[in-house]
Amino acid sequence: MGSVGLLPKKYKAIVYDKPGSISTKIEELDVPEPGPGEVLVNLTHSGVCHSDLGVMTNAWAALPYPVQAGQVGGHEGVGKIVKMGPGTDRSGVKMGDRVGIKWMAGICEACEACRAGADASCFNGKVSGYYTPGTFQQYVLSPANYVTPIPDGLDSAAAAPMLCAGVTVYAALRKSNAESGQWVVIMGAGGGLGHLAVQFSARGIGHRVIGIDHSSKKDIVLESGAEHFIPVDGTENMADEVKKLTSNLGAHAVVVCTSNNAAYGMSLDMLRFRGRVVCVGIPEGKPLPITSASPQLLVAKELQVVGSAVGDRRMAIETLDFAARGVVKTHFRLGKMEELTEVFEEMHRGELKGRVVLDLQ
Amino acid sequence: MGSVGLLPKKYKAIVYDKPGSISTKIEELDVPEPGPGEVLVNLTHSGVCHSDLGVMTNAWAALPYPVQAGQVGGHEGVGKIVKMGPGTDRSGVKMGDRVGIKWMAGICEACEACRAGADASCFNGKVSGYYTPGTFQQYVLSPANYVTPIPDGLDSAAAAPMLCAGVTVYAALRKSNAESGQWVVIMGAGGGLGHLAVQFSARGIGHRVIGIDHSSKKDIVLESGAEHFIPVDGTENMADEVKKLTSNLGAHAVVVCTSNNAAYGMSLDMLRFRGRVVCVGIPEGKPLPITSASPQLLVAKELQVVGSAVGDRRMAIETLDFAARGVVKTHFRLGKMEELTEVFEEMHRGELKGRVVLDLQ
Amino acid sequence: MGSVGLLPKKYKAIVYDKPGSISTKIEELDVPEPGPGEVLVNLTHSGVCHSDLGVMTNAWAALPYPVQAGQVGGHEGVGKIVKMGPGTDRSGVKMGDRVGIKWMAGICEACEACRAGADASCFNGKVSGYYTPGTFQQYVLSPANYVTPIPDGLDSAAAAPMLCAGVTVYAALRKSNAESGQWVVIMGAGGGLGHLAVQFSARGIGHRVIGIDHSSKKDIVLESGAEHFIPVDGTENMADEVKKLTSNLGAHAVVVCTSNNAAYGMSLDMLRFRGRVVCVGIPEGKPLPITSASPQLLVAKELQVVGSAVGDRRMAIETLDFAARGVVKTHFRLGKMEELTEVFEEMHRGELKGRVVLDLQ
Amino acid sequence: MGSVGLLPKKYKAIVYDKPGSISTKIEELDVPEPGPGEVLVNLTHSGVCHSDLGVMTNAWAALPYPVQAGQVGGHEGVGKIVKMGPGTDRSGVKMGDRVGIKWMAGICEACEACRAGADASCFNGKVSGYYTPGTFQQYVLSPANYVTPIPDGLDSAAAAPMLCAGVTVYAALRKSNAESGQWVVIMGAGGGLGHLAVQFSARGIGHRVIGIDHSSKKDIVLESGAEHFIPVDGTENMADEVKKLTSNLGAHAVVVCTSNNAAYGMSLDMLRFRGRVVCVGIPEGKPLPITSASPQLLVAKELQVVGSAVGDRRMAIETLDFAARGVVKTHFRLGKMEELTEVFEEMHRGELKGRVVLDLQ
Repeated sequence: MGSVGLLPKKYKAIVYDKPGSISTKIEELDVPEPGPGEVLVNLTHSGVCHSDLGVMTNAWAALPYPVQAGQVGGHEGVGKIVKMGPGTDRSGVKMGDRVGIKWMAGICEACEACRAGADASCFNGKVSGYYTPGTFQQYVLSPANYVTPIPDGLDSAAAAPMLCAGVTVYAALRKSNAESGQWVVIMGAGGGLGHLAVQFSARGIGHRVIGIDHSSKKDIVLESGAEHFIPVDGTENMADEVKKLTSNLGAHAVVVCTSNNAAYGMSLDMLRFRGRVVCVGIPEGKPLPITSASPQLLVAKELQVVGSAVGDRRMAIETLDFAARGVVKTHFRLGKMEELTEVFEEMHRGELKGRVVLDLQ
Repeated sequence: MGSVGLLPKKYKAIVYDKPGSISTKIEELDVPEPGPGEVLVNLTHSGVCHSDLGVMTNAWAALPYPVQAGQVGGHEGVGKIVKMGPGTDRSGVKMGDRVGIKWMAGICEACEACRAGADASCFNGKVSGYYTPGTFQQYVLSPANYVTPIPDGLDSAAAAPMLCAGVTVYAALRKSNAESGQWVVIMGAGGGLGHLAVQFSARGIGHRVIGIDHSSKKDIVLESGAEHFIPVDGTENMADEVKKLTSNLGAHAVVVCTSNNAAYGMSLDMLRFRGRVVCVGIPEGKPLPITSASPQLLVAKELQVVGSAVGDRRMAIETLDFAARGVVKTHFRLGKMEELTEVFEEMHRGELKGRVVLDLQ
Repeated sequence: MGSVGLLPKKYKAIVYDKPGSISTKIEELDVPEPGPGEVLVNLTHSGVCHSDLGVMTNAWAALPYPVQAGQVGGHEGVGKIVKMGPGTDRSGVKMGDRVGIKWMAGICEACEACRAGADASCFNGKVSGYYTPGTFQQYVLSPANYVTPIPDGLDSAAAAPMLCAGVTVYAALRKSNAESGQWVVIMGAGGGLGHLAVQFSARGIGHRVIGIDHSSKKDIVLESGAEHFIPVDGTENMADEVKKLTSNLGAHAVVVCTSNNAAYGMSLDMLRFRGRVVCVGIPEGKPLPITSASPQLLVAKELQVVGSAVGDRRMAIETLDFAARGVVKTHFRLGKMEELTEVFEEMHRGELKGRVVLDLQ
Repeated sequence: MGSVGLLPKKYKAIVYDKPGSISTKIEELDVPEPGPGEVLVNLTHSGVCHSDLGVMTNAWAALPYPVQAGQVGGHEGVGKIVKMGPGTDRSGVKMGDRVGIKWMAGICEACEACRAGADASCFNGKVSGYYTPGTFQQYVLSPANYVTPIPDGLDSAAAAPMLCAGVTVYAALRKSNAESGQWVVIMGAGGGLGHLAVQFSARGIGHRVIGIDHSSKKDIVLESGAEHFIPVDGTENMADEVKKLTSNLGAHAVVVCTSNNAAYGMSLDMLRFRGRVVCVGIPEGKPLPITSASPQLLVAKELQVVGSAVGDRRMAIETLDFAARGVVKTHFRLGKMEELTEVFEEMHRGELKGRVVLDLQ
């Protein structure tokens, strides 16, 4: 137990003051005391993710209930441990460590999912910025043994988006079962998730990557490491193009990073026998079946379709390790706490380029 | 190279004389000579499978082209090697060995599927009783290294149906990823595939089995080893029943042995997080998507949907080993070659009870 | 938080009063209060394991330091939760639940092993009855989310030995990679670990089991489900016998439950190509290499040798599930707290038949 | 079936005229006819491997019997198909294709190993240049479906050594179970196998590589992609150095490419919990156990030790694919057929630098 120097009494936090609409407000809150097993983290940066917008505006059908007014949002936070609660001596972290807070911010360690090592699916988990105060604030409490250590040499601002987008695509690629040297198609390869997926796939794991997106994204997809690019605009049959590039066999895996139902529909046709589609992007609106996922096609080619949610803590650590070594990089601009509402509005209008990371200091 | 005693010049075979309709005819054919790498097998038994009917009547949309008039059908044959062609000394079989011929009757050993050990998916494979003369005859040629040895102690008539239905469900259960002691739901548990699946699952692999079928099938499902039975008639919500039986978590895997699109539709809801649906039964008619296989549900619970075709030769050997040890059994009645057309008609009318094995002697 | 009725102030515990020699003493201790995240368990039964003897007498070279005088031993405890500490509401257990305490009694949830789902290897774990007060007492504290729920229908006394011997062999069999229907050799098949291994292997997972032990153990090995028994006394070449029983190929896996270096030495020769030896029994004295584990033999047949320690919490739950269903059973006799020193002496003289479970009430 | 232009009647081959000593002789042989399922390959290049020396001089204890006088050696051959035997139409290759011949030159497709997809371990396999005429000649016969296609863009001379050394280390790395981003130690990292292993590991699969060898090899090891180099000369405790570089945990895997028993002895101490040693290099002389492979250590850290022989045909194809894309490269010099004896003598004296590839034209 301990704390560094004198902590302030009050600090600034951004809350959702009118959940359901795009609105945030800065409030002054009391710096809390870490309870048993907890640490207090002085956050310096927080990424702003599209999911935050979904939580705030209650736009996402899958969310079990609406966020409460006054909740502090955010789930991509990085900061320094400034106080350790009782019973944290074997937690693997210590005063002054830089650590991250992600979507899944605390787990029960007792449910079937936790016991299976699938902590990101914890049945009783606390989701940062939704059920539990998030990272759009200067101080946050976290279970000492569930923070994510930030490796030396990785900039705090750069680390923030890795804690969500980075982990998500890394976990999905691991679930693709594709080995180094095998063909992986990334759909939505130029987007926020997609361009990271291309980097992890091509540079981290050594896949041969075919990126698919609008022709306007060609440069970012190829710069991210894709061997080939197929534009969705102007290509008559996407699956045929994939086959041409893969000795007429098709890809070993397709990772769908876009939230487009039509993209899902064509994904199975791009696979070779025993290939696997990994679902990552979540379409908005009413859930619709993947149109090509018929028993006939699945049986004939022994295809597989699997879903991948956010990655677990082990994946988070591996993701940050790749980032610290410079294997993957994301583009972001720094913003101020006061700008958050504006950022969300830009995001909502589809005008936001790249990712915003809030400077919380 | 060698042969036992004097072989006859002629033998009896059943051919499809009017493909497209239900009609077979017995013909006299010349006993052929085994070529390099081939053996001549004197068949004593052949199972009659629903797929034979599909091939003969050209009813199955997935078949690439219609069977030719004069083709000998059948793909569940058992007999004795009576002559070995040149170059068969290292093939692992010898004169007098009892061996089986299955759906995939010969492979190229060179394509991507063969190289991956997935010989049942060989891109250039010969399908018995469809592209290549089948097992409704007294003599058949086969690659010496691709016959399936019949273990001592397993009756030839009993072995025949294992070569198709048995292997198919065994392969599907292996693809379920469910471990001994875990919950597996078999849909269509009382059918030709299903009752074998229940036996392999419960008695062979040690799963805890929940069988689902019409209430009239309850006895055969429970006798086959299921721990629980859920009738489709009179059950309001099948998935709820499965959850009640599995600590409210759902099953680790669902194996769909029926060819019913509605069954597929409800299969995903029976799974626990990270559970897997295995598609085996092939619905007739236009391929339709599995209604619940939406990206939303797949991602939320990290579910998996996989297809399983007929098993490969290794699976065939393992299947017969389980049968030889009495772990699994199938019900069948013996029929004569002359009765085949009648058997197919009964099958077509849905009146056939159990399986028929032709006595070819 | 809560407690059932009035708890006593004092209770009885057995401590090691003279570590290094065989001596125990009953003491009265104060009933402790559960801290944050902890539960208080009123133990009714504790198994007595050979490892307890090793800890008490400091006989086991691998132990990092000697046990302290006054420590309460034991690591196979079963009892009822009688008080829940603060912050235990999401722990998956509640007042009155029957739960078990095993060798690994508490973990850090933060080290590399915990993050890999290998909690039994936790770098900071607390070992029951060695570093932390064990189960030879009427009350014990435990992390709420790390107790092992005891399934209904499993007798508490019968559950106790499953928490150590049962989990250990079950975990080892899982690490054997052998599938249902494949050949597994159990060395030391008639011993405390071995006879459980035979049951799990043959009846739980569906392996074909060859048991090896002294001829005096033949009955228990066959009764436990082994298909064949090979006596170590009077058999010239054990590996040859194994090959005779396995179509001259050898076994898919050998699980060495004995602590005999000679048994390890011959284990590799019993394997077929790509087979695997699993090390479970720990020889006493100076560590010696497995004599047949030469690079030459390992490369030539692509063999594998792997070590397996006690299983993790997920394995513990699965183990108890098999026991609750009657798939595996262990033989034990009940003893009183006062008899413990005598039990250890019998154990030391090698005269103890079967397992002793202390009745702590 | 077919042939290109007019084939010569005679051709040049290098035979072992005095097996047991280092001696080769060029002879004129008749160009053979491909039998059923065979192709005739006009070889242009053959690598010279240390195993050829072992076969010729009968120096390798593991070889079941001595090579016969008059045998044509070699097992790293590349050339063009110039004639196809009967029944080769579905073999996946055609007239004019460039193909490779490797150590395992023909398999039975029927034994347990072949059925398991482990064709490199075929019980009835034909080893090139040992039991069956090898690649030190201008023409060789091969099963049409077992040649290895050489990808466009890969030079024939460069492809030759990949067929043996390349495949061997690639297969070993796959057996290491180490994932992209994890730590792999290569022992003997500057040698013929080792420098290729470093390239495949670091550049192909994306491991973080620590190379160990004599300090004189530092440059080649780092140039091959290793992140760190540890010299065997002047390092007191190799395992300690490995731990310093890996957050005090140890490596995920150690691949022993050297044939040094001492290297094997220290390999286990370099591993983290659940780490794996892969044995590749085969020590000369009497087989000795790996000194640290005691049950105690294996159990305590749940370590694994596995052997890896030459890779199978699928691995060979993947290996060549990596080479064709420029991910891995080997250093070699071209030699003439007349120089082979001299090359072997240099090799025997340990003076050969890099690899020699014979130009057979």
